[in-house]
Amino acid sequence: MAANRMVYMPLGGAGEIGMNLYVYGFGPKGREQLIIVDAGVMFSDMETTPGIDLILPDFSWLEERRQRVMGVFVTHAHEDHLGALGYLHRRVKVPIYARRFTASICQRKLDAEGFGTSSIQMVRDLTTAIEAGPFRVKFVPITHSVPEASALIIESPGGLVLHTGDFKIDEKPLIGEAFDSGIWQRLSKEGISALVCDSTNVFFDREGRSESTIGPALADLFTSVKGAIAATTFASNVSRVRQIAQQAVECGRSVVLLGAAMHRMVGAAVESGVIDDFPKCVDPSEAVRLPRNRLLLLTTGSQGEPRAATAQLSNGKFRGFQLVPGDIVVISSRTIPGNERAVARVVNRFSASGVKVIEDHRELYHVSGHANRQDLTRMQRLLKPKMVVPMHGEHRHLTEHAELAASNGFHSEIVANGSMLDIGRRKIIADYSDQVGRNYLDGNEIISFDTGIVRDRLRMAREGVVMVAVTFGRRQVETEISVRSIGIGNGHDKQTDQLVAETVQACIGQLEMREGPDAVERQIAVAIRRGISHAVGKKPVVRVILSGY
Amino acid sequence: MAANRMVYMPLGGAGEIGMNLYVYGFGPKGREQLIIVDAGVMFSDMETTPGIDLILPDFSWLEERRQRVMGVFVTHAHEDHLGALGYLHRRVKVPIYARRFTASICQRKLDAEGFGTSSIQMVRDLTTAIEAGPFRVKFVPITHSVPEASALIIESPGGLVLHTGDFKIDEKPLIGEAFDSGIWQRLSKEGISALVCDSTNVFFDREGRSESTIGPALADLFTSVKGAIAATTFASNVSRVRQIAQQAVECGRSVVLLGAAMHRMVGAAVESGVIDDFPKCVDPSEAVRLPRNRLLLLTTGSQGEPRAATAQLSNGKFRGFQLVPGDIVVISSRTIPGNERAVARVVNRFSASGVKVIEDHRELYHVSGHANRQDLTRMQRLLKPKMVVPMHGEHRHLTEHAELAASNGFHSEIVANGSMLDIGRRKIIADYSDQVGRNYLDGNEIISFDTGIVRDRLRMAREGVVMVAVTFGRRQVETEISVRSIGIGNGHDKQTDQLVAETVQACIGQLEMREGPDAVERQIAVAIRRGISHAVGKKPVVRVILSGY
Repeated sequence: MAANRMVYMPLGGAGEIGMNLYVYGFGPKGREQLIIVDAGVMFSDMETTPGIDLILPDFSWLEERRQRVMGVFVTHAHEDHLGALGYLHRRVKVPIYARRFTASICQRKLDAEGFGTSSIQMVRDLTTAIEAGPFRVKFVPITHSVPEASALIIESPGGLVLHTGDFKIDEKPLIGEAFDSGIWQRLSKEGISALVCDSTNVFFDREGRSESTIGPALADLFTSVKGAIAATTFASNVSRVRQIAQQAVECGRSVVLLGAAMHRMVGAAVESGVIDDFPKCVDPSEAVRLPRNRLLLLTTGSQGEPRAATAQLSNGKFRGFQLVPGDIVVISSRTIPGNERAVARVVNRFSASGVKVIEDHRELYHVSGHANRQDLTRMQRLLKPKMVVPMHGEHRHLTEHAELAASNGFHSEIVANGSMLDIGRRKIIADYSDQVGRNYLDGNEIISFDTGIVRDRLRMAREGVVMVAVTFGRRQVETEISVRSIGIGNGHDKQTDQLVAETVQACIGQLEMREGPDAVERQIAVAIRRGISHAVGKKPVVRVILSGY
Repeated sequence: MAANRMVYMPLGGAGEIGMNLYVYGFGPKGREQLIIVDAGVMFSDMETTPGIDLILPDFSWLEERRQRVMGVFVTHAHEDHLGALGYLHRRVKVPIYARRFTASICQRKLDAEGFGTSSIQMVRDLTTAIEAGPFRVKFVPITHSVPEASALIIESPGGLVLHTGDFKIDEKPLIGEAFDSGIWQRLSKEGISALVCDSTNVFFDREGRSESTIGPALADLFTSVKGAIAATTFASNVSRVRQIAQQAVECGRSVVLLGAAMHRMVGAAVESGVIDDFPKCVDPSEAVRLPRNRLLLLTTGSQGEPRAATAQLSNGKFRGFQLVPGDIVVISSRTIPGNERAVARVVNRFSASGVKVIEDHRELYHVSGHANRQDLTRMQRLLKPKMVVPMHGEHRHLTEHAELAASNGFHSEIVANGSMLDIGRRKIIADYSDQVGRNYLDGNEIISFDTGIVRDRLRMAREGVVMVAVTFGRRQVETEISVRSIGIGNGHDKQTDQLVAETVQACIGQLEMREGPDAVERQIAVAIRRGISHAVGKKPVVRVILSGY
C-alpha cells in the first residue's frame, strides 16, 4: 500500500495576481482527500480577453475528484479569493467555511447562482480546529485590507502548513485584531512544514505602513480644502472607508456614500458586527443642499472603472452631484498594474474641468494591504518554516519571493498552477499543468479559454470584418453580391466594399464548378483578404456565404 | 489695421504624452505667419484604438493656412516628436530644420513617404539664428535621452520664447553637450516672454540623476553574472546603448546588437558624428560560439513589444540565441504607463524558463530623460520667464506643472490642444479645439479618429459578430438562411447559430412585405440581437443581407 503524503497544488493564483484557488491533499497517491483554499476570479482586459466578464479557475481537475473534496476554506472577502465560489459550488458541492463577514459575502456569491444558505459554515470559534477528512484547519486572524482576513493553519498527519492568505503586518489596523507576533512565534514551536505565503508585494522594498498612519494626513487634507471632497478607495477596505468617514465628520463634513459597493460593504460590516460605529451618512438628495465645504463623498471606482461613481462624477453629474473648481478628488488606493490608463482618463477629465485630483504618488493617504519585502522576511523569521512556498503572484513574483527566502536561509519551492508539491519531501511530484486551464464568464455562459473566441475577437478588433453574400442566379448576370464591412475601410466612401465586390466577381468568373461550396467560400475569402491587404494594408476576418451555388 | 501679436497653439502634446506638434505665429489677427515645432506620433492601445498603427495630429488647421507656414523645427529624434513628419509634409510642404543626427532620422520619415532630401535643412551653426518669416529661431543644445536634443529660442517682434523640447538637467551626459546653466542665465537677461516647458515628469519628486551615475552599477552587474546578459533599452538612447556596450567590453564581454532599431540608431549616430568610439560589435552567427560569460546582447523591446528582440528571446530562440538559467536580462528603461502588462508578460516568460530578469525597480541601471519636479523649478529660476506654459503632458501633468510654477511665483497658463495663447497678453484668445482632432494610420490609410471604425472594432471585440444571409426563394419553403458567427457562442456547438436561424425564421413569418429591404434587415438584426442578449447575455454586432426579397 502506498504511503500517505501531504500535497499542495495551486489551480489559480500561482502564475497571476488574482484567481486564487489552492488545493491541499492528504492520503496515498491518487487517493488523497482534498480541501480547497479560496476560489477567486480575475478581471479581463482588452489586450488579451476582450468582452470577457470574469476569468475563473478551471475546476475540471477538482470535478473529476469531487468525491474526495472535503470542503472549501475562504481566507477573506476579496473577489480574487471568493468571486468564483458560486461557479465552483455548481461543480463541486462541499461545505464552505468562512468567518462571519466573509461568509456574508460568500452567501451573495451562492445566491447569485441560486444556492441557499445551507452550504456555508460560519466560523465563529477560532480556537477549535475544523475537521475536514484528515485535515484540521484553524482560522488565524491576520491583518489585510478587508475585515476578518485570516491565515489558515492546515494540519494533517503529513505536516503543518501555514497558509497566509493575503496579508500585511499591521500592529494598529484600526478594526479587527492587530498583527500579533506572539501567535506566530508560538506556532513556530509546533514545527511548520511549509509557509505558503502571499507574494504580491515582493518587489516593494520598504517596510509596510500601518493603516493608522494615514489619519493625520487625511485630517490635514480635509480641513485645508475649501470645496467638496470626493474620496475613493476599495469599498471592501472597510477600515479605510470608516477612517475616511470618521476624519471627515471630525472636520465638520457630512459623509455621502456613492456607488452600490460602498453601501453593500459598509452594510455587511455593520451586520456582521465588524464595526458598530460607522458615522451616520447623509442621503445624496439631502446632501446636495449642504454647503460644499461640509461635504465628503465616499465613492467607488478607485481603479478608473468607467461605470463606477468616480468615473461618473468625472463625466458630469452623478446622483445630483457635480464637482467644480475648488473641489478635490483624493484617490486613496494604489492603481493595480494594467489600470493606469483607466485611472488617468478619469483624472484627466477632472483636471480638464478644473477639479484637482490628488493621485497620491507619495502615498500619504494610502497604505498597501500586502506584506512588503521586509515584512515577508519578518514573517519567515517568526515562523521558521522548513520550506517557503510563494503563492499569489505572477511567475516573476514567485521567483523573487523564492530568492528572498533563499537569501534568508530558507528552503523554497516555486509551485506554479497545476504543479503538485509533496510537502514532506519538499519536491514537485506531479505536473497537471496541461490539464489546468482557465474559464471565462462571457455574458452568462462559461467557456473555456481555448475555444478560439477570444482570438477571433482580437483579430476583428485589429483588422475588421468583411462579410459577403453571393447569391447565384440562373444565369451569371443574375448573380447578386452583397458586401458588409465593419471596422474597416473608412466607412463612408464604400471603396472597400467596391473592391470586395470586384474581387468576388473575378473569383466567380474563374470558378470551376467541381468544387463544393465550402471550398469556394474559402477560396473567395482568401482572395478578398489578399486584395484588401494589398490595397489598404489590413487583413480582415472574412466570411463568405454562397447560396444557390 | 489689427495689431501684431505673437501666439502659441498646440495641436498635439498638450493633452497627451506623445504626438507633439506646436504652432507659433506672429502677425495681425488671422494673418499670422506660422512656424511648427515638431510633428510626432503616438502609439495605439487595445483599449481605445485597436488595430491602429499610429496616432497622428490632425493637420487640417495647418493645411487650411499652409500659405502662411514658414517651416518646421524638429527638437530631437524621438518618434513622438518627428514620427508624423512624412505625413505632415504631404499636406504642408515647407522646409524642415534639424540638427544633423535628428535630420538623418527625419530623412527616413520623408523617404518612407517618397520625398527627397531637398526639404531638410541641416542645422550645423548653432550661433546664427534661422530666419523664418518674422521669426528668428536658434537651436540650443539641451540634455535628454537622445543625441543632439535641442531647446529652441523662438524670437519674433512680439517676444522671446524658450521652447524646451523634451529635456532633463544632466551635467555629465556622456555624449553631447552637458547641461550648461550659464547659457540659460545669460538668456534670462534678454527677457523671456514664455518658458514653454516639458511636463512629462512633473509627478516625480526627486532631483534627476545624470546618465553618468549608472556606469559603476552596470560594471558591478556585468562582472557578477556567470552567464550571458541581455540588456534592453530604447535604441535611440545612444548614450545608454554606448555606455552599456563599453562597460560590457571592459568586463570582457563581446557585444551583439539584436533588433533592427539598434543597428539603425547606432549607425545614424556614427554617421552623423555623434559618436566615434562605439565598441566593435560581433555578428550573431559568430557570437553564438562564444562562452556565455563573454556575451552581452543589446536588445530592442524594452517596452515589451511582442515582435522586438527581447520578447522573441523570451519565447525561445532568436537569431540563434536562447537564454537559459544562469543568464540574466536587465531592463535599462522605465516602463511607459500602459505598457506594464506587455513588459510583465515578457518577464514572466523568462522567469518561467529560469532566466532571471532585473526589472530595475530601484533604478540602478536607468535614469530618466525628463526633468523631474525639482529640475523644472531650477529651470524656472534660471530663466525667470514672464510666464510658464506647460507642454507635453496629459491634462493632469499640465495642471500640476502650472501649480508648481505658481508655487514658485511664476505666472502660468494651461494651453490645451486647439487653444491659442496670446504670448504678449498672456491669455487664451481663441479655441479651435472643436476643429482639432486626431488622425489614425490604419494599415496604409489615414483616417479621422471619428469615423466610427474604432467604435465598431471595440464593439466586435467585446460582443462578437453575427452575420446572416437570407435568400428568398419563390416559395417560402425555399428560403435559405445562412448564419456565420464570429467571436461568440462557444464556437463548437452551433447553438447560437441555431438560435439565430430560428429568430430569422420567426421574423420572416411575420414580415409585412410593404417594407423595403433595408428596414427589414434592421428589424431582423434587432430581433437577433435581442434573442442572443436574452439567451447568452451578449449583444453582438449583427449584419443581415437579404437577397431575392
